[in-house]
Amino acid sequence: MARLEQAITSIVDVFSEYASSDCKLNKQELKKMMEKEVQSPELKAKICSGDGDNIPWKLDRNLDRELDFKEFMNGVTTMAKCYYQKKTEIRLHRGLDPHFKACSGFMK
Amino acid sequence: MARLEQAITSIVDVFSEYASSDCKLNKQELKKMMEKEVQSPELKAKICSGDGDNIPWKLDRNLDRELDFKEFMNGVTTMAKCYYQKKTEIRLHRGLDPHFKACSGFMK
Repeated sequence: MARLEQAITSIVDVFSEYASSDCKLNKQELKKMMEKEVQSPELKAKICSGDGDNIPWKLDRNLDRELDFKEFMNGVTTMAKCYYQKKTEIRLHRGLDPHFKACSGFMK
Repeated sequence: MARLEQAITSIVDVFSEYASSDCKLNKQELKKMMEKEVQSPELKAKICSGDGDNIPWKLDRNLDRELDFKEFMNGVTTMAKCYYQKKTEIRLHRGLDPHFKACSGFMK
C-alpha cells in the first residue's frame, strides 16, 4: 500500500481500537494509547496534559472531556508539526540543504 | 516503533521527500505524491482538484498555489476523515457494533 495511505489508515485504525463505542477517547483511553502508540517524550508532551491525567483542553474543543476523531486529528497534526520542525532544523543545522532555510518561517 | 508515532513520522517523511527546498508542494509535486503515495480513488478525490492539475483551493489557504506543511496536514486530515467515515459505516452496516451508531453524528 502506498505510504501516505498506509499512514492514514494506520492512524484511523489506532483511533478506532482505543476509542470506545461512542467513537471518542476518554482520558483513560487516551492515556493508554499514548503510552503504547507514541514513544517520543517530546511528541507525548505535545498531547498529554501536564499531569498526564486529563484530556488536554487545547484539543478538547467542545470541552466534553473526551476527544472525538476531529479533535484527535488536531492532536496528530500538532505532533506531526513538532516532528517536522525538528527534522527541518536538523537538516538546517547539518547544512544538508542550505537553501532549506526558507522553511524556518513555516511555523508562524 | 509505536504505530501512531510511525504513521506520523511516515507522513512527515513523505512530505519532506516531495516538497522542494522551499518546504512547499507545488502542483507537480503534489500530483506526483498523490499518484505514488495514495492508491484509493476515493481518498485521491478528496485532495486532488477536479482536473487533477491544480492545487485544490480548499487546501491552499493563503492562495499561493502551493501547499505548505500546515495546509498539507489539513489534506491528510480530510483523507483520514473520509477513511474513518467509511470504516465506521461498514461497522454499522455489518451490525458489528450496534451501539456504534453514536458515531454517525461525528461528521457534523
